[in-house]
Amino acid sequence: MATPDPKTRTIQLAHGGGGRLTAELIDTVILPALGGAPSSGGLTDAATLKMDGARMAFTTDTYVVQPLEFPGGDIGKLSICGTVNDLAVCGATPRAISLGLVIREGMEIAELRRLLESAGRTARRTGAAVVTGDTKVLGRTALEGLVINTAGVGEIMPGAELGFDRIQAGDRIVLSGALGEHGLAVMSRRENLSFSSTLQSDCAPLHELTAALIDKLGGAVRFMRDPTRGGLAATLVEIAEATARDLQIDEAAIPVNPAALVAAEVLGLDLLTVANEGKLVAIVAPEAADEAVAILATHDIARRAADIGAVDDVVEHPLVELATKAGGRRIIQMPYGEQLPRIC
Amino acid sequence: MATPDPKTRTIQLAHGGGGRLTAELIDTVILPALGGAPSSGGLTDAATLKMDGARMAFTTDTYVVQPLEFPGGDIGKLSICGTVNDLAVCGATPRAISLGLVIREGMEIAELRRLLESAGRTARRTGAAVVTGDTKVLGRTALEGLVINTAGVGEIMPGAELGFDRIQAGDRIVLSGALGEHGLAVMSRRENLSFSSTLQSDCAPLHELTAALIDKLGGAVRFMRDPTRGGLAATLVEIAEATARDLQIDEAAIPVNPAALVAAEVLGLDLLTVANEGKLVAIVAPEAADEAVAILATHDIARRAADIGAVDDVVEHPLVELATKAGGRRIIQMPYGEQLPRIC
Repeated sequence: MATPDPKTRTIQLAHGGGGRLTAELIDTVILPALGGAPSSGGLTDAATLKMDGARMAFTTDTYVVQPLEFPGGDIGKLSICGTVNDLAVCGATPRAISLGLVIREGMEIAELRRLLESAGRTARRTGAAVVTGDTKVLGRTALEGLVINTAGVGEIMPGAELGFDRIQAGDRIVLSGALGEHGLAVMSRRENLSFSSTLQSDCAPLHELTAALIDKLGGAVRFMRDPTRGGLAATLVEIAEATARDLQIDEAAIPVNPAALVAAEVLGLDLLTVANEGKLVAIVAPEAADEAVAILATHDIARRAADIGAVDDVVEHPLVELATKAGGRRIIQMPYGEQLPRIC
Repeated sequence: MATPDPKTRTIQLAHGGGGRLTAELIDTVILPALGGAPSSGGLTDAATLKMDGARMAFTTDTYVVQPLEFPGGDIGKLSICGTVNDLAVCGATPRAISLGLVIREGMEIAELRRLLESAGRTARRTGAAVVTGDTKVLGRTALEGLVINTAGVGEIMPGAELGFDRIQAGDRIVLSGALGEHGLAVMSRRENLSFSSTLQSDCAPLHELTAALIDKLGGAVRFMRDPTRGGLAATLVEIAEATARDLQIDEAAIPVNPAALVAAEVLGLDLLTVANEGKLVAIVAPEAADEAVAILATHDIARRAADIGAVDDVVEHPLVELATKAGGRRIIQMPYGEQLPRIC
């Protein structure tokens, strides 16, 4: 009899990477154990609730980034942006945030204060108050660093009609800016790489971008997502699989940050798979694509917004295909596991 | 110049104990850093939101209990009960729960599945679906055990009118059962104490108790709280301080579990300060007290419900006073810090 592969019976770092292995763990262990798929058809990043007539979005994320402070942000700012963005891409206006701390014994209170001040500043920018919280402390040997969980509640905008099922052939794929800056800034700082001085995390709240798109384009906005863990690759493969449609993207159209390109090369990473924390992918009706790019580009964090490709027909084996600058074609795959642990 | 006391500049285990030191950290560091008190006047266990006309409660808690499984429960069941109970004591019907996992690399997937099945079973009993989640994995040296954060959203019952400001002189203090079973069951298991075989955690959802009270007694229910970390002592001192009223409780009236009494004695603990995870404190109008006790006692988890004391007048220095069985009087204080780390 074969001994079970330890990889199939114990948790690997890659199970937390936001790629194929995370999806497998969720589908084969977490969802069945919790009692089957919820009504929305999956344990989504943000769930939609109807309560007493109000259309609400509800989401959670836990942040374990190391180091706690990195160029362009820190775990406090990140913990607010991440949850605000999960609400925003559901077409919701962020209203209230909960913040649960797990602190390591011995942490400097001055450092904790600094990180929470950063969270508070970010929350105020988004108009969402931190209204409830919880504090736990673990012993020095039990936890390395700091864990922050945030959950968020938002009110879905009246004009928002978003969903995988609204995506149609011919729809355009709009990206709000250059890729990979968050993951690479954190990794560069951790590895003390020299380009860390020029590379900044893109960590930012996206609620103004999403509100502007819905406000001005209404139902022409079909779907939105922020490409965090697993990067643009994971987001596009997820869309292709959920809609059973091919996606075509154009490498030449994807905005690139030269410092990120260098860092990715040094670290041996594909920019398409590296995490972003301040970027938006929007699927929009073809006639609205130019206006969507123009609306995004009026915001500082999305000046380089671009139309990077299109949604195609329903097929049996949906693929994400990249037309390379060199004139070739490459199939984009869901990253398997964790390339950069503890980046968010 | 004096060197600052390291206790005042670094985090201690006691900062996470739910007592005086936790309150100080919240008031002097966390709330000011996050940007001042939210509108409700504090970072409460559950916040009340109004969205599009709906009256909602929103809460979060992080669970770090060790061991992960203990007599009467496990971290999965606990993570649902704790959040459901925070909603229930606000008079809310639990509707949706988020679940954020931080898993240690190398954890047996079978164990994770068992704990999540327990969470799922408990959630189904409460009618609140787990609708959204997040999964992170930390390396073997970065985390000991498992961290589960849950946040919850509930709909406030139409008849619920609860708040510190509704508490009046003469109101009765009703307790749903015997004290300290959760904290002592966990601690006994951890220390391999012999009485662990008879002592079970009281971990249970309280939503049926709270709904029955509000349904039948309406505005005669002034305030509810589940006495978790810091035990009954912390809950009563908090009520005394928030209302500026003396509270009088009667030791002879407080239900006691003999096994818990023995365990507390062996561990050198005061039962009044040990955590419960399935007990309710309700402040009710005097004329409703007997009925409140009768309503609670129809539920298996509250068969020993009792009227244990009364709320008194507004005073300058509010105190919680215990009339002892021996005929003496003892002032009950807020526990300072952590007596039993990682019990929830």
